[in-house]
Amino acid sequence: MTQQDGGPVTLKTIAQEMGVSVTTVARSLKDGHKISAETIRRVRETADRMGYVRNLEGAKLRTGKTFVGMAFLGLSDEEEVGDSGSIGLLNGIHRRFAGTDYAVRAVPVSQGDQSLERMQEVVRGRLADGIILDHIELQDDRVKYLLDADFPFVAFGRAELLPDHPWFDIDNEFAAWQGTDALLRDGHRRIAMIDGDPRFTFVRQRIRGYERALRDHGLEPDPALRHHTEIAPDVARRAAGPLIDRGADAFLCVNELAFLGTRAGVRDHLGAGANRIGFSLRSGTNLANYVATRVHSSHYSRQQAGWQLADLLLSRIERSPIGACQKLVQTNLITTERPNAAF
Amino acid sequence: MTQQDGGPVTLKTIAQEMGVSVTTVARSLKDGHKISAETIRRVRETADRMGYVRNLEGAKLRTGKTFVGMAFLGLSDEEEVGDSGSIGLLNGIHRRFAGTDYAVRAVPVSQGDQSLERMQEVVRGRLADGIILDHIELQDDRVKYLLDADFPFVAFGRAELLPDHPWFDIDNEFAAWQGTDALLRDGHRRIAMIDGDPRFTFVRQRIRGYERALRDHGLEPDPALRHHTEIAPDVARRAAGPLIDRGADAFLCVNELAFLGTRAGVRDHLGAGANRIGFSLRSGTNLANYVATRVHSSHYSRQQAGWQLADLLLSRIERSPIGACQKLVQTNLITTERPNAAF
Repeated sequence: MTQQDGGPVTLKTIAQEMGVSVTTVARSLKDGHKISAETIRRVRETADRMGYVRNLEGAKLRTGKTFVGMAFLGLSDEEEVGDSGSIGLLNGIHRRFAGTDYAVRAVPVSQGDQSLERMQEVVRGRLADGIILDHIELQDDRVKYLLDADFPFVAFGRAELLPDHPWFDIDNEFAAWQGTDALLRDGHRRIAMIDGDPRFTFVRQRIRGYERALRDHGLEPDPALRHHTEIAPDVARRAAGPLIDRGADAFLCVNELAFLGTRAGVRDHLGAGANRIGFSLRSGTNLANYVATRVHSSHYSRQQAGWQLADLLLSRIERSPIGACQKLVQTNLITTERPNAAF
Repeated sequence: MTQQDGGPVTLKTIAQEMGVSVTTVARSLKDGHKISAETIRRVRETADRMGYVRNLEGAKLRTGKTFVGMAFLGLSDEEEVGDSGSIGLLNGIHRRFAGTDYAVRAVPVSQGDQSLERMQEVVRGRLADGIILDHIELQDDRVKYLLDADFPFVAFGRAELLPDHPWFDIDNEFAAWQGTDALLRDGHRRIAMIDGDPRFTFVRQRIRGYERALRDHGLEPDPALRHHTEIAPDVARRAAGPLIDRGADAFLCVNELAFLGTRAGVRDHLGAGANRIGFSLRSGTNLANYVATRVHSSHYSRQQAGWQLADLLLSRIERSPIGACQKLVQTNLITTERPNAAF
């Protein structure tokens, strides 16, 4: 942190060296707000050459900020195929924070946890500047607490029965409609749904989309074809057989874990006859490219979802209004064909 | 936190109510050390009934501890099939800490990150009582730093060229030997290895096991059959074809991601002829149960690995000697058969 003459390299010495303002240097090294790409590049090169090291501890003392974003991520306890969602989110959050002063910390949350208490510790102890949380319920008590405490946060999903709050969400109703519609176009008529607990908002939204697609094709939804439970491959695997016995000819799966489990369950139940069964899933990865099964994916990258969550959180920490910290995105339908080699 | 008479419920009032010592109550509510299961149950019931709330903030002030264990977990940037390792570790760490006063925070680390600097911030700022880290190199600079700083930590893997340090590890040499041996017993002779960067200790250990198994069967290792690279499904997929062109008849894969990618690459390259190729992998999940391919898994649960890491860290935080905070475990070989339905 020293120049050749022994003095510390500061924003000011860099600005003097380059003949630009301290603000220009500060912004170029931070978020690049309103600074040209060329200037950012030149400032960063100069800072590197001069041996500048940002004094984050000083900034913490000056601003009272922690420069930590904390992500409370719901983990499934299963160890069948690993989790295909949380790591993608975490990667995306990490990517958005890279190059900012913020560090990300993930707090695992499992079912039955006292996650509200953990969150209260963070807010009361000012252990972070903002919080990301997922697995949102209709009247989520954590969202309610964070709103009441006026603490910056972004929810991955909407607490529909609570006041307006910052959120990022995938259009779950559309995604379920899209996946169901694709199976109906393939000629399937008895589409089973393997999904999560309806206490989560996203599951309610998915049921609406699934039922709408069926009605759009002149079919009445059969509640006996819906299976709501913990989202885990082994659970989905056990659910598949009984649903086939009730006449299911295709499955709409909530994510990759449910899909892999359901597919194995169909194979367990039907053996060589399994090929007549259709599959669609909501996906956040490209897993469907690695299995030899025709499958419709309603896809939105989990990494991109994490990036968006972190981006909105940074805005919210800067006190952007709630309405500017809400974003809904739609999934794309990707159909992967079954390769000629059954393998 | 009040009794019916208005006074606070403390360890002492619970002890008085039950006619036991304060130590018995404290241990029953904490880790249950040397207390019978029945007593633990009775103390916890009484504490609940009396409305006891543990005052962790007080403990933090008294002890100077943070009651945070921080896990620096290497994440792959890939978004092909999600990560099958880190979430399992995190789940296991979370499980071990559940019921203790410790909270876990995960810090994502990606390649090229300044993870040493992030760690220095945690140590200097006393943001945690201990650290777990993975992706250990032979002369890991983070392990060296933590040893020098005398900060409690446990490494998932061994920095072989550094002084003795706390670690948990899977016997990687044995696992690779086991997986290679299983393929040789199946009659394969040209076994390709798809593995990580040899700068990581575990990769060096795996190469030793792989080569030893070949020599045990009278075969000389062919370096042209080893592919070392970033561990990602798309990378493994592209690597498979050229290795088959060099005569590979089986693949030893470093983990689930490499296996799924390699399997897809074999299918891309050989089509219907893919069935003659053998597979083995080191696994931390039960993924092999969900694919219709015969595969040998050298298995050790990632959740169990996380649990062990957290368990050793708790010992190390309590200043157990380094030698008592080292543990090596072996994988079990699990062979899953290809079901009769190719699907």
